[in-house]
Amino acid sequence: MGPHPAVAAIRLAVRRVLHDVLTLAPSETATGSAPGGSRPPLVLAACSGGADSMALASALAFEAPRLGLRAGGVTVDHGLQEGSDLRAAEVVSRLLALGLDPVEALPVTVGREGGPEAAARDARYAALDEAAERHGAAAVLLGHTRDDQAETVLLGLARGSGTRSLSGMAVASGVGGRYRRPFLGLDRQTARKACMVQSLPVWDDPHNADPAYTRSRVRHEALPVLEKALGKGVVEALARTAQLSRDDADALDSWAVAVEPSVRDDTGALEVAKLYALPPAVRRRVLRRAAIEAGSPAGSLFARHIEEVDRLITGWRGQRAINLPGRVAVHRHGGRLVLRQG
Amino acid sequence: MGPHPAVAAIRLAVRRVLHDVLTLAPSETATGSAPGGSRPPLVLAACSGGADSMALASALAFEAPRLGLRAGGVTVDHGLQEGSDLRAAEVVSRLLALGLDPVEALPVTVGREGGPEAAARDARYAALDEAAERHGAAAVLLGHTRDDQAETVLLGLARGSGTRSLSGMAVASGVGGRYRRPFLGLDRQTARKACMVQSLPVWDDPHNADPAYTRSRVRHEALPVLEKALGKGVVEALARTAQLSRDDADALDSWAVAVEPSVRDDTGALEVAKLYALPPAVRRRVLRRAAIEAGSPAGSLFARHIEEVDRLITGWRGQRAINLPGRVAVHRHGGRLVLRQG
Repeated sequence: MGPHPAVAAIRLAVRRVLHDVLTLAPSETATGSAPGGSRPPLVLAACSGGADSMALASALAFEAPRLGLRAGGVTVDHGLQEGSDLRAAEVVSRLLALGLDPVEALPVTVGREGGPEAAARDARYAALDEAAERHGAAAVLLGHTRDDQAETVLLGLARGSGTRSLSGMAVASGVGGRYRRPFLGLDRQTARKACMVQSLPVWDDPHNADPAYTRSRVRHEALPVLEKALGKGVVEALARTAQLSRDDADALDSWAVAVEPSVRDDTGALEVAKLYALPPAVRRRVLRRAAIEAGSPAGSLFARHIEEVDRLITGWRGQRAINLPGRVAVHRHGGRLVLRQG
Repeated sequence: MGPHPAVAAIRLAVRRVLHDVLTLAPSETATGSAPGGSRPPLVLAACSGGADSMALASALAFEAPRLGLRAGGVTVDHGLQEGSDLRAAEVVSRLLALGLDPVEALPVTVGREGGPEAAARDARYAALDEAAERHGAAAVLLGHTRDDQAETVLLGLARGSGTRSLSGMAVASGVGGRYRRPFLGLDRQTARKACMVQSLPVWDDPHNADPAYTRSRVRHEALPVLEKALGKGVVEALARTAQLSRDDADALDSWAVAVEPSVRDDTGALEVAKLYALPPAVRRRVLRRAAIEAGSPAGSLFARHIEEVDRLITGWRGQRAINLPGRVAVHRHGGRLVLRQG
């Protein structure tokens, strides 16, 4: 008798990603800082102790040895709750019990920049990056599911920044595609079920149900009501939107990159007439890239900023310089756009 | 003392569109079938009797004469409720009271195709098209607001069909951009307020609050909860998403059109190797266009169909022909994709 369908599903998802990692791993580990470069490539599971990442760790522990890979696990201790260190130690012991090795807890200090969720995420990825480097890991697996993806798309939608902000999380991201998300096509229910039938103890992060967090409100309030209003396929539709939006945004970015040299004059200034001839979607991307190049921080540059710069081209009536975040001023002069950091 | 800010806002929105219509109108009316070609161009307001379209009609009645335009009004009687003809007659008298001329009720028969909302919409636009032709109207104004746009984006999101389905309603659509939506940047509250301060009687369509209709559920259930979860700016973010998505979809469509001749061989067949080299977003659009050209009805062709055709290129393992709606079969043969209607 084969494994329970839920367990088969999580293992298949992990196996696919490991195959992919294997094709890339040899060259990557050769340049890594792993002690004992001749050992098999190492793949780490990032595990909070919740159902999604415990399912992930269990599937990694099962699949990795069969493909000649080493499997390890890390858990980040955000230090945000009393006793979080004890909980991290408990997760470490659960990962060890799955047969993962090496396993370690990564204590971090969460700052304040960008709000509590962004600050926690930044600290988490910094710690995971450091651990991946130190262990010379070929990949770090993350337990994000299709439900997480749907939530991310809704959060992006709320920003109203267009196609890129709707593209959710990537299947592979980070330096050299280090971070992999095998469960992005899998629903949360399957991960929970897989833990249950494998009798894996899981821990529910109280933050996940805390209405003070936007993501938690999206999960527990917005998505259920959207499903009620729009039908059961909403999560899947949102996840598909993410993939399609990512591809669209990639194609348009590549267009903007390709066209950029042709809209600059000999001195490198942007020529208004040539910008005007571009499709608006491409022109806005060229302008955004130019603003970032001039020193405007990407994270503070919103659609409305670019919109205003665009009006120097499409709605010219002698307006003054546009001020962008990062003290970048854009003005139009002699048929050229000039971007300067003050 | 000037008009109330809400009245000023609806008038400004209509005036902008009328200016635009004026620049285009002379040539359009010359070819139109209007009796008495030398009269000023006519602009019609489509009016349900609800607050949005009553506000629209009132602003048109005020602005059109000042720009040397004639202003008329039409109301569609969908015949779906007992006494709908009496209600239409009542709307006609309200439009006449605003000073619009000509004014008429357009009775339609709503079919069943595509569900009740789509069938009603099809019948409505057919009647508006006919009336516009008959009166030689230069434009037909529609009262859709920013709130309607946000709802449309959410409905598109539920389809999960990507950027085009997120692009909502256009500022101008139909033959020669006949339909204009002056209020797409205005919120519903402003339209209601404008009716109130002008003492215009308005009629609330019971369908708008009927939970049997998807749009009604989106309006009364989904959007309020999304606002609670994501913050007050959601409607604005959704409307901005519509505009950005429309521009993105337009640019990518133009790319697909431009690249298409270069991926066909001498016989017009699609070459797999050349398709493979395209960005996925562009390739999928080329495939979609080819499927429609082969006879697959655009409305039945979903993202998952194109996805499957795409796997003939990106995941080739000798699979059989893919069957698309409209009895179109796609198979791969000798490095070519062949699309044929059976």
